[in-house]
Amino acid sequence: MTPRVLLFDVFGTVVDWRSPLIEAATAAGARAGVQARWADVVDDWRRAYQPALNQVIGGAAWQDLDSLHARTLDMVLAGHRIDLPPGERDGLVRGWHQLRAWPDSAAGLEALRRRHLTATLSNGHLALLANLVKFAGLRFDVLLSAQLAASYKPAPEVYLTALRLLGCPPGQAAMVAAHEGDLRAAAALGLRPVFVARPLEWGPGPGPEQPPSDLDGLIVVSDLNALADALDG
Amino acid sequence: MTPRVLLFDVFGTVVDWRSPLIEAATAAGARAGVQARWADVVDDWRRAYQPALNQVIGGAAWQDLDSLHARTLDMVLAGHRIDLPPGERDGLVRGWHQLRAWPDSAAGLEALRRRHLTATLSNGHLALLANLVKFAGLRFDVLLSAQLAASYKPAPEVYLTALRLLGCPPGQAAMVAAHEGDLRAAAALGLRPVFVARPLEWGPGPGPEQPPSDLDGLIVVSDLNALADALDG
Repeated sequence: MTPRVLLFDVFGTVVDWRSPLIEAATAAGARAGVQARWADVVDDWRRAYQPALNQVIGGAAWQDLDSLHARTLDMVLAGHRIDLPPGERDGLVRGWHQLRAWPDSAAGLEALRRRHLTATLSNGHLALLANLVKFAGLRFDVLLSAQLAASYKPAPEVYLTALRLLGCPPGQAAMVAAHEGDLRAAAALGLRPVFVARPLEWGPGPGPEQPPSDLDGLIVVSDLNALADALDG
Repeated sequence: MTPRVLLFDVFGTVVDWRSPLIEAATAAGARAGVQARWADVVDDWRRAYQPALNQVIGGAAWQDLDSLHARTLDMVLAGHRIDLPPGERDGLVRGWHQLRAWPDSAAGLEALRRRHLTATLSNGHLALLANLVKFAGLRFDVLLSAQLAASYKPAPEVYLTALRLLGCPPGQAAMVAAHEGDLRAAAALGLRPVFVARPLEWGPGPGPEQPPSDLDGLIVVSDLNALADALDG
């Protein structure tokens, strides 16, 4: 059965976080007169992301991604022995509100919303998602966030809160993501896992993330247009 | 100062609930072979709405609008001594997911989202709002609902929850509604009140609702295009 509701991971799945943030960091460094390997800084910043979320899942007080990004950026810059003025740091945190869609995302989402209810299910808070989706020129039917469960993915309550708010049983929903952990957590609750390959998420260097092929009913697609074809073609 | 965030009431302000529901009820009655003054039934149904919400605000367990509409429809039909089969009743409850936009709403909202973050703040739950906004061909940046505060307007926590989720101080937000009570509640919390005249909300008969002219900073407009002109023109 084709899922009525499609929940989308955002960072890496629908938008490219890496190249816009490298551009923003490079520009910030130039303004501040600081030399650095900015691609490494951005990759380390992204690597610091899930551990920061895991602290919240483990019981630390919920903070939004802007706050967590500000804290992890300070850590990563210190690790690279880089100093940036506070205004430039704020600008980089704000950079997560202004990422670029992957080339297929806008058209793919538009096709998918003809026959499905489309919603974000992101660790980004609603204010960030609203800015990001607008900046990137994307359209979802609803924006949902881990914020609404006061937790972060892959905590089960994030997925369950989204389903409850949409009045949707797990068997009528799919989770669309480029990341194994997200799909495993969703599939464990009965959502259909959809893996979108995003081999350039971490740039041209590292090997691409592999689909979690042991998950029952897994759908694997190369982009969101291919997903529309697979579900509705 | 022009508000950064615009929160919109939906039923009556952005969409016409009355004529689509009268059409749906008339069609349901014809199918069931039941004669009735369906416009009166629909108006009574709408009148039963706020009292049902007020019970929740007063402490009764939160239920979504579909549940409350089902209960109030049964009451109203009983009051009119009308019997309708359960399937037709369900169809009428579902009719609230399929209302028509006022003629200016789509273009007005499109203009307003160029310079503002636009969000619903409706008593409709998210599943209803997602269906309704899609059916009516409208676009908001975010859908927010009283559901997220597990209460109903005009309870203050509904407005405060929306502001918290958007990371927006009250002084940077406006509440756009065709209803005095909604605007009074929002203005009491520091949101800018915007009254949209919808003289046909209750049909051509009754006198139109008057703007609450004693509210400080009240903006009064004839439709959403006029609001875009007033704020950004």
